[in-house]
Amino acid sequence: MRGIVAFYLTYLLCLILGIICVALVVHWNYSYRGGFAWDGSAKHFNWHPVFMVTGMVVLYGNAAILYRIPLTWGHNKLPWKLLHAGLLLLSFILSVIGLCAVFNYHNANNISNLYSLHSWVGICTTALFTAQWVMGFSTFLLPCTPMSARAFIKPTHVWMGGIILVLSIVSCISGINEKLFFALKENTNGTLPYSALPPEAITANSLGVIIVAFGLVVLKILSNQIWQRPETGYEEGVYQPLGYDGS
Amino acid sequence: MRGIVAFYLTYLLCLILGIICVALVVHWNYSYRGGFAWDGSAKHFNWHPVFMVTGMVVLYGNAAILYRIPLTWGHNKLPWKLLHAGLLLLSFILSVIGLCAVFNYHNANNISNLYSLHSWVGICTTALFTAQWVMGFSTFLLPCTPMSARAFIKPTHVWMGGIILVLSIVSCISGINEKLFFALKENTNGTLPYSALPPEAITANSLGVIIVAFGLVVLKILSNQIWQRPETGYEEGVYQPLGYDGS
Repeated sequence: MRGIVAFYLTYLLCLILGIICVALVVHWNYSYRGGFAWDGSAKHFNWHPVFMVTGMVVLYGNAAILYRIPLTWGHNKLPWKLLHAGLLLLSFILSVIGLCAVFNYHNANNISNLYSLHSWVGICTTALFTAQWVMGFSTFLLPCTPMSARAFIKPTHVWMGGIILVLSIVSCISGINEKLFFALKENTNGTLPYSALPPEAITANSLGVIIVAFGLVVLKILSNQIWQRPETGYEEGVYQPLGYDGS
Repeated sequence: MRGIVAFYLTYLLCLILGIICVALVVHWNYSYRGGFAWDGSAKHFNWHPVFMVTGMVVLYGNAAILYRIPLTWGHNKLPWKLLHAGLLLLSFILSVIGLCAVFNYHNANNISNLYSLHSWVGICTTALFTAQWVMGFSTFLLPCTPMSARAFIKPTHVWMGGIILVLSIVSCISGINEKLFFALKENTNGTLPYSALPPEAITANSLGVIIVAFGLVVLKILSNQIWQRPETGYEEGVYQPLGYDGS
Protein backbone atom coordinates (compact mmCIF):
# COMPACT_ATOMS: atom_id res chain seq x y z
CA MET A 1 0.00 0.00 0.00
CA ARG A 2 2.88 2.33 0.91
CA GLY A 3 4.45 1.51 -2.46
CA ILE A 4 1.24 2.45 -4.28
CA VAL A 5 0.95 5.80 -2.46
CA ALA A 6 4.62 6.55 -3.23
CA PHE A 7 3.98 5.60 -6.87
CA TYR A 8 0.97 7.89 -7.25
CA LEU A 9 2.84 10.80 -5.62
CA THR A 10 5.74 10.26 -8.07
CA TYR A 11 3.28 9.88 -10.95
CA LEU A 12 1.56 13.14 -9.95
CA LEU A 13 4.95 14.86 -9.96
CA CYS A 14 5.58 13.40 -13.43
CA LEU A 15 2.21 14.72 -14.72
CA ILE A 16 2.84 18.19 -13.23
CA LEU A 17 6.37 18.39 -14.69
CA GLY A 18 5.04 17.25 -18.08
CA ILE A 19 2.34 19.94 -18.09
CA ILE A 20 4.94 22.57 -17.11
CA CYS A 21 7.21 21.41 -19.97
CA VAL A 22 4.44 21.84 -22.56
CA ALA A 23 3.30 25.17 -21.08
CA LEU A 24 6.87 26.54 -20.96
CA VAL A 25 7.82 25.50 -24.49
CA VAL A 26 4.61 27.06 -25.88
CA HIS A 27 5.08 30.21 -23.74
CA TRP A 28 8.73 30.57 -24.85
CA ASN A 29 7.89 30.35 -28.56
CA TYR A 30 4.64 32.30 -28.37
CA SER A 31 5.74 35.15 -26.09
CA TYR A 32 9.41 35.54 -27.01
CA ARG A 33 9.85 34.05 -30.51
CA GLY A 34 6.82 35.65 -32.19
CA GLY A 35 4.33 32.77 -32.19
CA PHE A 36 3.49 30.20 -34.84
CA ALA A 37 2.89 29.97 -38.58
CA TRP A 38 3.42 27.43 -41.39
CA ASP A 39 4.87 29.79 -44.01
CA GLY A 40 8.66 29.20 -44.05
CA SER A 41 9.31 32.12 -41.69
CA ALA A 42 10.97 32.00 -38.25
CA LYS A 43 7.48 31.37 -36.86
CA HIS A 44 7.45 28.14 -38.87
CA PHE A 45 10.57 26.95 -37.02
CA ASN A 46 8.87 27.61 -33.65
CA TRP A 47 6.71 24.51 -34.09
CA HIS A 48 9.90 22.39 -33.95
CA PRO A 49 10.66 22.74 -30.21
CA VAL A 50 6.94 22.61 -29.32
CA PHE A 51 6.27 19.35 -31.18
CA MET A 52 9.55 17.67 -30.19
CA VAL A 53 9.18 18.44 -26.47
CA THR A 54 5.48 17.53 -26.44
CA GLY A 55 5.87 14.40 -28.60
CA MET A 56 9.29 12.94 -27.93
CA VAL A 57 9.51 13.82 -24.24
CA VAL A 58 6.18 14.43 -22.48
CA LEU A 59 3.81 12.15 -24.41
CA TYR A 60 6.54 9.54 -24.92
CA GLY A 61 7.44 9.52 -21.20
CA ASN A 62 3.80 9.16 -20.15
CA ALA A 63 3.25 6.32 -22.63
CA ALA A 64 6.39 4.55 -21.36
CA ILE A 65 5.19 4.41 -17.75
CA LEU A 66 1.60 3.41 -18.55
CA TYR A 67 2.03 -0.19 -17.36
CA ARG A 68 3.46 1.01 -14.03
CA ILE A 69 0.08 2.54 -13.03
CA PRO A 70 -1.47 0.04 -10.57
CA LEU A 71 -4.94 1.00 -11.86
CA THR A 72 -4.09 -0.80 -15.14
CA TRP A 73 -3.18 -4.10 -13.46
CA GLY A 74 -6.66 -5.25 -12.55
CA HIS A 75 -7.86 -5.63 -16.13
CA ASN A 76 -7.22 -7.42 -19.39
CA LYS A 77 -3.86 -6.17 -20.70
CA LEU A 78 -4.92 -5.75 -24.35
CA PRO A 79 -6.68 -2.33 -24.02
CA TRP A 80 -3.62 -0.97 -22.17
CA LYS A 81 -1.33 -2.36 -24.85
CA LEU A 82 -3.43 -0.58 -27.47
CA LEU A 83 -3.33 2.65 -25.42
CA HIS A 84 0.47 2.30 -24.97
CA ALA A 85 0.96 1.77 -28.72
CA GLY A 86 -1.59 4.50 -29.58
CA LEU A 87 0.03 7.12 -27.34
CA LEU A 88 3.44 6.27 -28.79
CA LEU A 89 2.04 6.49 -32.33
CA LEU A 90 0.66 9.96 -31.49
CA SER A 91 4.04 10.86 -29.97
CA PHE A 92 5.70 9.66 -33.20
CA ILE A 93 3.31 11.68 -35.40
CA LEU A 94 3.97 14.84 -33.35
CA SER A 95 7.72 14.23 -33.67
CA VAL A 96 7.45 13.85 -37.45
CA ILE A 97 5.48 17.14 -37.66
CA GLY A 98 8.21 18.71 -35.48
CA LEU A 99 10.88 17.43 -37.88
CA CYS A 100 8.90 18.65 -40.92
CA ALA A 101 8.76 22.11 -39.30
CA VAL A 102 12.55 22.40 -39.08
CA PHE A 103 13.26 20.82 -42.51
CA ASN A 104 10.67 23.08 -44.20
CA TYR A 105 12.07 26.16 -42.46
CA HIS A 106 15.66 25.26 -43.43
CA ASN A 107 14.70 24.53 -47.04
CA ALA A 108 12.70 27.76 -47.36
CA ASN A 109 15.68 29.78 -46.10
CA ASN A 110 18.53 27.88 -47.82
CA ILE A 111 19.91 26.59 -44.51
CA SER A 112 21.67 23.22 -44.56
CA ASN A 113 19.98 20.28 -42.86
CA LEU A 114 21.51 17.75 -40.48
CA TYR A 115 24.94 19.26 -39.90
CA SER A 116 24.92 20.02 -36.14
CA LEU A 117 25.60 17.44 -33.42
CA HIS A 118 22.10 18.25 -32.10
CA SER A 119 20.60 17.20 -35.43
CA TRP A 120 22.75 14.04 -35.66
CA VAL A 121 21.68 12.86 -32.19
CA GLY A 122 18.08 13.98 -32.82
CA ILE A 123 17.67 12.14 -36.12
CA CYS A 124 19.25 8.97 -34.67
CA THR A 125 16.77 9.20 -31.78
CA THR A 126 13.80 9.43 -34.14
CA ALA A 127 15.14 6.54 -36.24
CA LEU A 128 15.54 4.39 -33.10
CA PHE A 129 12.04 5.38 -31.98
CA THR A 130 10.61 4.32 -35.36
CA ALA A 131 12.40 0.96 -35.19
CA GLN A 132 11.25 0.49 -31.59
CA TRP A 133 7.60 1.20 -32.45
CA VAL A 134 7.58 -1.14 -35.47
CA MET A 135 9.36 -3.88 -33.48
CA GLY A 136 7.02 -3.37 -30.52
CA PHE A 137 3.91 -3.51 -32.71
CA SER A 138 5.05 -6.66 -34.55
CA THR A 139 6.11 -8.42 -31.36
CA PHE A 140 3.45 -7.49 -28.82
CA LEU A 141 0.34 -6.71 -30.88
CA LEU A 142 0.38 -9.07 -33.86
CA PRO A 143 -1.36 -12.24 -32.62
CA CYS A 144 0.83 -14.48 -34.78
CA THR A 145 4.00 -13.66 -32.79
CA PRO A 146 4.85 -16.60 -30.49
CA MET A 147 4.94 -15.98 -26.73
CA SER A 148 8.56 -17.13 -26.61
CA ALA A 149 9.54 -14.30 -28.99
CA ARG A 150 7.63 -11.79 -26.82
CA ALA A 151 9.41 -12.95 -23.67
CA PHE A 152 12.78 -12.84 -25.46
CA ILE A 153 12.32 -9.32 -26.85
CA LYS A 154 10.60 -7.71 -23.84
CA PRO A 155 13.74 -6.82 -21.80
CA THR A 156 15.34 -5.20 -24.87
CA HIS A 157 12.07 -3.35 -25.63
CA VAL A 158 11.90 -1.97 -22.07
CA TRP A 159 15.61 -1.02 -22.04
CA MET A 160 15.41 0.66 -25.46
CA GLY A 161 12.34 2.57 -24.26
CA GLY A 162 14.37 4.19 -21.49
CA ILE A 163 17.37 4.83 -23.76
CA ILE A 164 15.22 6.58 -26.39
CA LEU A 165 13.93 8.92 -23.66
CA VAL A 166 17.53 9.65 -22.59
CA LEU A 167 18.47 10.44 -26.21
CA SER A 168 15.37 12.67 -26.57
CA ILE A 169 16.49 14.65 -23.54
CA VAL A 170 20.04 14.95 -24.92
CA SER A 171 18.54 16.24 -28.20
CA CYS A 172 16.20 18.71 -26.45
CA ILE A 173 18.87 20.22 -24.18
CA SER A 174 21.39 20.64 -27.00
CA GLY A 175 18.65 22.09 -29.24
CA ILE A 176 17.38 24.64 -26.70
CA ASN A 177 20.98 25.67 -25.92
CA GLU A 178 21.72 26.10 -29.65
CA LYS A 179 18.53 28.07 -30.32
CA LEU A 180 19.25 30.50 -27.48
CA PHE A 181 22.76 31.22 -28.83
CA PHE A 182 21.23 31.84 -32.28
CA ALA A 183 18.36 34.00 -31.06
CA LEU A 184 19.90 36.03 -28.23
CA LYS A 185 22.70 38.03 -29.78
CA GLU A 186 23.65 41.56 -28.79
CA ASN A 187 22.31 44.29 -31.10
CA THR A 188 19.89 41.90 -32.84
CA ASN A 189 16.31 43.16 -32.70
CA GLY A 190 17.10 44.95 -29.45
CA THR A 191 17.35 41.74 -27.43
CA LEU A 192 19.87 41.35 -24.64
CA PRO A 193 22.55 38.73 -25.30
CA TYR A 194 22.17 35.22 -23.84
CA SER A 195 25.08 35.96 -21.46
CA ALA A 196 23.04 38.76 -19.80
CA LEU A 197 20.33 36.19 -18.97
CA PRO A 198 17.27 38.14 -20.21
CA PRO A 199 13.80 36.79 -19.27
CA GLU A 200 13.69 34.63 -22.43
CA ALA A 201 16.96 32.92 -21.44
CA ILE A 202 15.66 32.25 -17.92
CA THR A 203 12.42 30.84 -19.38
CA ALA A 204 14.10 28.52 -21.90
CA ASN A 205 16.88 27.44 -19.48
CA SER A 206 14.17 26.62 -16.93
CA LEU A 207 12.35 24.63 -19.63
CA GLY A 208 15.57 22.63 -20.12
CA VAL A 209 15.91 21.97 -16.39
CA ILE A 210 12.24 20.87 -16.12
CA ILE A 211 12.68 18.54 -19.14
CA VAL A 212 15.64 16.92 -17.36
CA ALA A 213 13.65 16.64 -14.11
CA PHE A 214 10.68 15.09 -15.99
CA GLY A 215 13.01 12.59 -17.66
CA LEU A 216 14.60 11.61 -14.36
CA VAL A 217 11.19 11.03 -12.75
CA VAL A 218 10.12 8.82 -15.68
CA LEU A 219 13.40 6.87 -15.52
CA LYS A 220 12.94 6.46 -11.75
CA ILE A 221 9.43 5.08 -12.27
CA LEU A 222 10.69 2.71 -15.01
CA SER A 223 13.63 1.45 -12.94
CA ASN A 224 11.87 0.90 -9.61
CA GLN A 225 11.22 -2.85 -9.47
CA ILE A 226 8.54 -2.45 -6.78
CA TRP A 227 6.42 -0.45 -9.21
CA GLN A 228 6.62 -2.95 -12.07
CA ARG A 229 3.47 -4.64 -13.34
CA PRO A 230 3.39 -8.04 -11.56
CA GLU A 231 4.81 -10.65 -13.96
CA THR A 232 2.36 -13.20 -12.58
CA GLY A 233 -0.44 -11.00 -13.89
CA TYR A 234 -3.84 -9.79 -12.86
CA GLU A 235 -6.92 -10.66 -14.82
CA GLU A 236 -10.08 -8.93 -13.71
CA GLY A 237 -8.47 -8.25 -10.36
CA VAL A 238 -7.37 -11.82 -9.73
CA TYR A 239 -3.73 -13.00 -9.89
CA GLN A 240 -2.91 -15.67 -12.46
CA PRO A 241 0.28 -17.12 -11.07
CA LEU A 242 0.53 -19.86 -13.68
CA GLY A 243 0.60 -19.79 -17.44
CA TYR A 244 0.75 -16.02 -17.77
CA ASP A 245 2.78 -14.96 -20.76
CA GLY A 246 3.99 -11.69 -19.27
CA SER A 247 3.91 -10.03 -22.70
CA MET B 1 29.97 -18.99 -18.98
CA ARG B 2 28.12 -17.55 -22.00
CA GLY B 3 27.15 -14.55 -19.83
CA ILE B 4 30.79 -13.97 -18.89
CA VAL B 5 31.98 -14.07 -22.52
CA ALA B 6 29.19 -11.66 -23.51
CA PHE B 7 30.19 -9.40 -20.61
CA TYR B 8 33.86 -9.29 -21.58
CA LEU B 9 33.00 -8.58 -25.22
CA THR B 10 30.76 -5.69 -24.10
CA TYR B 11 33.43 -4.52 -21.66
CA LEU B 12 36.03 -4.59 -24.44
CA LEU B 13 33.71 -2.46 -26.58
CA CYS B 14 33.35 -0.06 -23.65
CA LEU B 15 37.14 0.23 -23.25
CA ILE B 16 37.65 0.79 -26.99
CA LEU B 17 34.92 3.47 -27.15
CA GLY B 18 36.41 5.17 -24.06
CA ILE B 19 39.88 5.27 -25.62
CA ILE B 20 38.42 6.67 -28.87
CA CYS B 21 36.57 9.38 -26.86
CA VAL B 22 39.79 10.54 -25.16
CA ALA B 23 41.81 10.35 -28.40
CA LEU B 24 39.15 12.28 -30.38
CA VAL B 25 38.68 15.07 -27.81
CA VAL B 26 42.48 15.58 -27.59
CA HIS B 27 42.83 15.42 -31.39
CA TRP B 28 40.00 17.94 -31.89
CA ASN B 29 41.48 20.48 -29.49
CA TYR B 30 45.11 19.87 -30.44
CA SER B 31 44.77 19.72 -34.22
CA TYR B 32 41.87 22.11 -34.86
CA ARG B 33 41.67 24.45 -31.84
CA GLY B 34 45.37 25.30 -31.52
CA GLY B 35 46.42 23.04 -28.65
CA PHE B 36 46.74 23.71 -24.93
CA ALA B 37 48.02 26.38 -22.56
CA TRP B 38 47.16 27.75 -19.09
CA ASP B 39 47.39 31.45 -19.86
CA GLY B 40 43.81 32.75 -20.22
CA SER B 41 43.87 32.40 -24.02
CA ALA B 42 41.57 30.25 -26.18
CA LYS B 43 44.11 27.43 -25.67
CA HIS B 44 43.29 27.63 -21.96
CA PHE B 45 39.64 26.86 -22.71
CA ASN B 46 40.67 23.77 -24.71
CA TRP B 47 41.43 21.89 -21.48
CA HIS B 48 37.72 22.13 -20.57
CA PRO B 49 36.33 19.57 -23.07
CA VAL B 50 39.38 17.31 -22.64
CA PHE B 51 39.09 17.10 -18.84
CA MET B 52 35.30 16.89 -18.76
CA VAL B 53 35.08 14.08 -21.35
CA THR B 54 38.01 12.18 -19.80
CA GLY B 55 36.90 12.70 -16.18
CA MET B 56 33.11 12.91 -16.16
CA VAL B 57 32.44 10.39 -18.93
CA VAL B 58 35.25 7.91 -19.64
CA LEU B 59 36.88 7.52 -16.21
CA TYR B 60 33.52 7.87 -14.43
CA GLY B 61 31.88 5.24 -16.67
CA ASN B 62 34.73 2.78 -16.14
CA ALA B 63 34.64 3.31 -12.37
CA ALA B 64 30.86 2.77 -12.34
CA ILE B 65 31.07 -0.68 -13.95
CA LEU B 66 34.05 -1.92 -11.92
CA TYR B 67 31.95 -4.28 -9.76
CA ARG B 68 30.43 -5.86 -12.87
CA ILE B 69 33.80 -7.34 -13.90
CA PRO B 70 33.63 -11.05 -12.89
CA LEU B 71 37.39 -10.97 -12.18
CA THR B 72 36.65 -8.77 -9.13
CA TRP B 73 34.15 -11.23 -7.60
CA GLY B 74 36.59 -13.86 -6.38
CA HIS B 75 38.30 -11.60 -3.87
CA ASN B 76 37.74 -9.50 -0.78
CA LYS B 77 35.54 -6.57 -1.80
CA LEU B 78 37.48 -3.88 0.11
CA PRO B 79 40.32 -3.35 -2.42
CA TRP B 80 37.75 -3.01 -5.22
CA LYS B 81 35.73 -0.55 -3.13
CA LEU B 82 38.92 1.51 -2.66
CA LEU B 83 39.66 1.32 -6.41
CA HIS B 84 36.03 2.33 -7.22
CA ALA B 85 36.23 5.30 -4.83
CA GLY B 86 39.78 6.16 -5.99
CA LEU B 87 38.89 6.17 -9.70
CA LEU B 88 35.84 8.32 -8.98
CA LEU B 89 37.96 10.71 -6.90
CA LEU B 90 40.37 10.99 -9.85
CA SER B 91 37.39 11.52 -12.15
CA PHE B 92 36.16 14.26 -9.79
CA ILE B 93 39.60 15.97 -9.68
CA LEU B 94 39.82 15.97 -13.49
CA SER B 95 36.30 17.46 -13.67
CA VAL B 96 37.25 20.22 -11.23
CA ILE B 97 40.36 21.04 -13.31
CA GLY B 98 38.09 21.09 -16.39
CA LEU B 99 35.73 23.52 -14.64
CA CYS B 100 38.66 25.70 -13.50
CA ALA B 101 39.80 25.86 -17.14
CA VAL B 102 36.51 27.33 -18.34
CA PHE B 103 36.01 29.67 -15.36
CA ASN B 104 39.60 31.00 -15.65
CA TYR B 105 39.20 31.49 -19.41
CA HIS B 106 35.88 33.32 -18.96
CA ASN B 107 37.23 35.53 -16.17
CA ALA B 108 40.38 36.40 -18.15
CA ASN B 109 38.24 37.47 -21.13
CA ASN B 110 35.34 39.15 -19.31
CA ILE B 111 32.86 36.48 -20.39
CA SER B 112 29.95 35.75 -18.04
CA ASN B 113 29.90 32.42 -16.23
CA LEU B 114 27.01 30.00 -15.87
CA TYR B 115 24.45 31.56 -18.15
CA SER B 116 23.90 28.87 -20.82
CA LEU B 117 21.66 25.83 -20.39
CA HIS B 118 24.79 23.71 -20.99
CA SER B 119 26.45 25.33 -17.97
CA TRP B 120 23.33 24.99 -15.80
CA VAL B 121 23.03 21.25 -16.51
CA GLY B 122 26.81 20.81 -16.25
CA ILE B 123 27.18 22.50 -12.87
CA CYS B 124 24.18 20.57 -11.46
CA THR B 125 25.83 17.35 -12.70
CA THR B 126 29.10 18.16 -10.91
CA ALA B 127 27.21 19.12 -7.72
CA LEU B 128 25.29 15.81 -7.82
CA PHE B 129 28.55 13.93 -8.45
CA THR B 130 30.16 15.63 -5.42
CA ALA B 131 27.18 14.74 -3.20
CA GLN B 132 27.21 11.17 -4.55
CA TRP B 133 30.93 10.72 -3.83
CA VAL B 134 30.68 12.11 -0.28
CA MET B 135 27.56 10.03 0.43
CA GLY B 136 29.18 6.92 -1.08
CA PHE B 137 32.37 7.39 0.94
CA SER B 138 30.51 7.93 4.24
CA THR B 139 28.15 5.04 3.64
CA PHE B 140 30.32 2.32 2.11
CA LEU B 141 33.86 3.06 3.30
CA LEU B 142 33.55 4.46 6.84
CA PRO B 143 33.53 1.38 9.09
CA CYS B 144 31.18 3.03 11.61
CA THR B 145 28.24 3.05 9.13
CA PRO B 146 25.80 0.27 10.05
CA MET B 147 25.13 -2.46 7.48
CA SER B 148 21.43 -1.62 7.50
CA ALA B 149 22.22 1.93 6.32
CA ARG B 150 24.43 0.51 3.52
CA ALA B 151 21.69 -1.84 2.35
CA PHE B 152 19.14 1.01 2.47
CA ILE B 153 21.27 3.48 0.51
CA LYS B 154 22.78 1.07 -2.05
CA PRO B 155 19.89 1.07 -4.61
CA THR B 156 19.79 4.89 -4.58
CA HIS B 157 23.60 5.01 -4.91
CA VAL B 158 23.52 2.70 -7.94
CA TRP B 159 20.60 4.57 -9.56
CA MET B 160 22.21 7.97 -8.98
CA GLY B 161 25.44 6.62 -10.48
CA GLY B 162 23.66 5.92 -13.78
CA ILE B 163 21.76 9.21 -13.72
CA ILE B 164 24.95 11.25 -13.20
CA LEU B 165 26.42 9.55 -16.30
CA VAL B 166 23.28 10.46 -18.28
CA LEU B 167 23.56 14.09 -17.14
CA SER B 168 27.29 14.12 -18.02
CA ILE B 169 26.41 13.00 -21.55
CA VAL B 170 23.68 15.67 -21.81
CA SER B 171 26.28 18.26 -20.72
CA CYS B 172 28.96 17.02 -23.14
CA ILE B 173 26.68 16.91 -26.20
CA SER B 174 25.23 20.38 -25.56
CA GLY B 175 28.76 21.72 -24.88
CA ILE B 176 30.34 20.28 -28.04
CA ASN B 177 27.38 21.54 -30.11
CA GLU B 178 27.73 25.04 -28.57
CA LYS B 179 31.51 25.15 -29.07
CA LEU B 180 31.21 24.23 -32.76
CA PHE B 181 28.68 27.03 -33.37
CA PHE B 182 31.07 29.47 -31.62
CA ALA B 183 34.20 28.28 -33.40
CA LEU B 184 33.01 27.51 -36.92
CA LYS B 185 31.67 30.76 -38.33
CA GLU B 186 32.00 31.88 -41.93
CA ASN B 187 34.80 34.41 -42.56
CA THR B 188 36.39 33.79 -39.15
CA ASN B 189 40.06 32.78 -39.44
CA GLY B 190 39.36 31.29 -42.84
CA THR B 191 37.37 28.35 -41.40
CA LEU B 192 34.37 26.94 -43.19
CA PRO B 193 31.07 27.40 -41.31
CA TYR B 194 29.69 24.54 -39.22
CA SER B 195 26.87 24.12 -41.75
CA ALA B 196 29.43 23.19 -44.46
CA LEU B 197 30.62 20.30 -42.25
CA PRO B 198 34.40 20.93 -42.47
CA PRO B 199 36.73 18.18 -41.11
CA GLU B 200 36.66 19.74 -37.61
CA ALA B 201 32.86 19.51 -37.52
CA ILE B 202 32.95 15.87 -38.61
CA THR B 203 35.59 15.12 -35.95
CA ALA B 204 33.73 16.79 -33.08
CA ASN B 205 30.29 15.52 -34.17
CA SER B 206 31.80 12.00 -34.29
CA LEU B 207 33.21 12.57 -30.81
CA GLY B 208 29.67 13.38 -29.64
CA VAL B 209 28.26 10.23 -31.24
CA ILE B 210 31.02 8.06 -29.69
CA ILE B 211 30.37 9.64 -26.25
CA VAL B 212 26.68 8.68 -26.58
CA ALA B 213 27.63 5.14 -27.69
CA PHE B 214 30.07 4.78 -24.77
CA GLY B 215 27.37 5.97 -22.33
CA LEU B 216 24.81 3.51 -23.73
CA VAL B 217 27.25 0.59 -23.39
CA VAL B 218 27.98 1.57 -19.75
CA LEU B 219 24.25 1.89 -19.01
CA LYS B 220 23.65 -1.50 -20.65
CA ILE B 221 26.33 -3.10 -18.45
CA LEU B 222 24.88 -1.43 -15.34
CA SER B 223 21.30 -2.46 -16.12
CA ASN B 224 21.91 -6.10 -17.11
CA GLN B 225 20.94 -8.10 -14.02
CA ILE B 226 22.87 -11.17 -15.21
CA TRP B 227 26.12 -9.19 -15.01
CA GLN B 228 25.58 -7.91 -11.47
CA ARG B 229 28.00 -8.91 -8.71
CA PRO B 230 26.30 -11.84 -6.90
CA GLU B 231 24.55 -10.42 -3.82
CA THR B 232 25.45 -13.57 -1.89
CA GLY B 233 29.11 -12.66 -2.33
CA TYR B 234 32.35 -14.32 -3.11
CA GLU B 235 35.25 -14.37 -0.68
CA GLU B 236 38.50 -15.81 -2.03
CA GLY B 237 36.52 -17.58 -4.72
CA VAL B 238 34.01 -19.19 -2.36
CA TYR B 239 30.36 -18.14 -2.09
CA GLN B 240 29.22 -16.88 1.33
CA PRO B 241 25.48 -17.31 1.09
CA LEU B 242 24.81 -16.33 4.69
CA GLY B 243 25.63 -13.22 6.66
CA TYR B 244 27.02 -11.33 3.67
CA ASP B 245 26.26 -7.65 3.94
CA GLY B 246 26.08 -6.99 0.22
CA SER B 247 27.53 -3.51 0.70
